[in-house]
Amino acid sequence: MDVSSLGERVLEGDRRAVARAISMVEDGADGLAELSAKLFARTGTAYTIGLTGSPGVGKSSLAQHLVKAARDRDMTVAVLAIDPTSPFTGGALLGDRLRMQTHATDPGVFIRSMATRGHLGGMALAAPEAIRILDASGKDIVIVETVGVGQAEVEVATATDTTVVVVSPGWGDAVQVAKAGILEIADVFVVNKADKEGAGEAAKDLRVMIKMGAEQDWVPPVVQTSTQDGRGIDELWDAVERHRKHQEATEAIRRKRRARLLSEVEAMAAQELRLRMRETLEADAGLAADLDERKVDPYRAAAILIERISETGS
Amino acid sequence: MDVSSLGERVLEGDRRAVARAISMVEDGADGLAELSAKLFARTGTAYTIGLTGSPGVGKSSLAQHLVKAARDRDMTVAVLAIDPTSPFTGGALLGDRLRMQTHATDPGVFIRSMATRGHLGGMALAAPEAIRILDASGKDIVIVETVGVGQAEVEVATATDTTVVVVSPGWGDAVQVAKAGILEIADVFVVNKADKEGAGEAAKDLRVMIKMGAEQDWVPPVVQTSTQDGRGIDELWDAVERHRKHQEATEAIRRKRRARLLSEVEAMAAQELRLRMRETLEADAGLAADLDERKVDPYRAAAILIERISETGS
Repeated sequence: MDVSSLGERVLEGDRRAVARAISMVEDGADGLAELSAKLFARTGTAYTIGLTGSPGVGKSSLAQHLVKAARDRDMTVAVLAIDPTSPFTGGALLGDRLRMQTHATDPGVFIRSMATRGHLGGMALAAPEAIRILDASGKDIVIVETVGVGQAEVEVATATDTTVVVVSPGWGDAVQVAKAGILEIADVFVVNKADKEGAGEAAKDLRVMIKMGAEQDWVPPVVQTSTQDGRGIDELWDAVERHRKHQEATEAIRRKRRARLLSEVEAMAAQELRLRMRETLEADAGLAADLDERKVDPYRAAAILIERISETGS
Repeated sequence: MDVSSLGERVLEGDRRAVARAISMVEDGADGLAELSAKLFARTGTAYTIGLTGSPGVGKSSLAQHLVKAARDRDMTVAVLAIDPTSPFTGGALLGDRLRMQTHATDPGVFIRSMATRGHLGGMALAAPEAIRILDASGKDIVIVETVGVGQAEVEVATATDTTVVVVSPGWGDAVQVAKAGILEIADVFVVNKADKEGAGEAAKDLRVMIKMGAEQDWVPPVVQTSTQDGRGIDELWDAVERHRKHQEATEAIRRKRRARLLSEVEAMAAQELRLRMRETLEADAGLAADLDERKVDPYRAAAILIERISETGS
C-alpha cells in the first residue's frame, strides 16, 4: 500500500492502517512527510490527556478506567503508551495491552504502545506525530501514558492539553513530586490507590504544596481514585473536563497548541539542520582540517558551516 | 581599547587584558568573533585539566596544590573556576580566589572565576572560549575547576585533555560517582582527604568499579591526596602526566581536540540557526498562522523555515 492510500485509510479510522502509520513513526520511515501532509488538515479535533507518574502508581489501570469513562460518554478514545527509555516495547507494556483487551472488540477504542526505534528526533518528536495520527483517525480523546518520570517522558506528557500527574499514597511520593519538578506541570493531580492508607494525607500534602507554589489562574485539583473499585474516576473525568473548559474559555488551549506546534516545527528544522551539518562536515574534511591547523577560527568555521548547509538546502 | 589591541595584549600575556577578554566571553560581547579570529592561531599549546566532583570534596584546595606543582616544574598555569548554575560569581568562588592569593604576585599564575551572564550558548560554549584565551595568553597548563557535578559542569570538565574526578572518603560518594555516570568520564580519580577515615576503602571501591566497567586502553589511576599535608599531589601530577603521554603516544589527544573543536563549531552554528529561526518566526507571523489553520503541515513548515533562514544568511 502506498503512503497516500495509507493516509486515506487512517482518515477512515481503519485500525490496521493506524497501527501501520504509528509503526512508520517509530521507525522514522521515509514516507512520514507525505503522510503528515495527507493527515494534518484533519487534525486538531482530538482532546489530548497526558498521564505521568512513577512506575507502579497505576497509570495503566487508570488509563483503562478513563477509556471506559470516555465510552460511557459516547466518545471514541485512543491510548498511546510510551516508553522513551527502551528502544523496543517491553514486557510491562505488553501486559498492559493484554489488560486493555477488555476493549479489543470495541471499534471506538484504539490502544497502542510505542517506542522509538529509528525516529531521529527521539520521542519528543515522534510522540506528537503519533498523536496526530490518532487525532486524524477520528478519536475524540487521545490518552498519552508514559512509563516513568524521566525528562523525556515528562516532556511528552506535558505536550498534551491536560497533564495528569499520578502519585500513590505516602509522603515519600509527594516529596518525589516536589523534587522532580512535576508540581509545576500538573493540571490535575491524582492520588491513586485511594483504598490504601495515607491517601488522604497525600492529597492534603499535595494541596498544601500547590498553595505554597506560584499563584496560577488554574489551581490543579487533587482527585483520589481507586482502580480497584473505580472510586473517583468520574471526579477525575470531571476535573479534566473543567480544565478543558477553563482553557477553552481563556483561549489558553489555542495558544498552547499553537506554541506546541511552532516549537515542534523549530525542533524538526533544527534536527534537519544538525543532520546537514554532520553530512557537510563528513563530506568535506577541508573545514575540519582548516580548523585543526588553526587556519579558520571557530566563529568563522561556524559561519562557513551555516553557509554550506544553506547552499545544500536550496 | 579596541578588540584588536586587546587581542594583542592577551597574546603578550597581559593579566588585565586576559581578565577583560574573559569578561567579554561571560557577557557574550559583540567583539568575540573578532577576538577569536585574532587569538585562535596561537592556541592549542596549553594542556587542559578538568577538576570535577561534588561540592565540599576540596577541588579548590586541590587546584591550588596543582598550581604549586606546575610552578615547581617551571610551568605557567591558569585556573578557571566555573559555576554554570549561578548567573553571577558567588561567595564561595570569591573565597577560593582569596585563598588563591598566595600566587597573586606570581606572573606565571592566573586565576579567574567565571559565570555566564549574557553568553547565549551557556557555559558549554563559553568555557572553551575562555580556555582558548588563557591558552593564547601563553599558559602551559589550564585547570578548569567546576563547582558541582551537574550535567553542564560535567560537560565542561570533560571538554579538557585530562578529566580528574574528585571524591572524598565514604562509600556513599563512590555510589554517587556510579550513579552520576562519572565513572566513565574520569581519566584520573582522586580520593581527597586521604587523612580521613575510609579513604583507603573508597580508593579500593573505585578500583573495583573501574575493573567491573567496560575495558579501556587507559585504566584511570586512583590517587589518594590530602590538601592538608600535601600528600599525594606529586602522584596526582604524575598520573595526569602519564595520561598526557598515553594520549600523545596514541594520537588520541589530537583526535579528541579535533572532535571537540568540531562539535563546538556545530553547536555554535546550531545556536546561531536557532536564533535565526526565532527571529524569522517572530518577524513573519504568516507561517505560524498557516500552521495554526492547518494550511501547511509541520514537515512542510520546517522545510519552509529552513529555506527562510538560509535566505537570511546569504
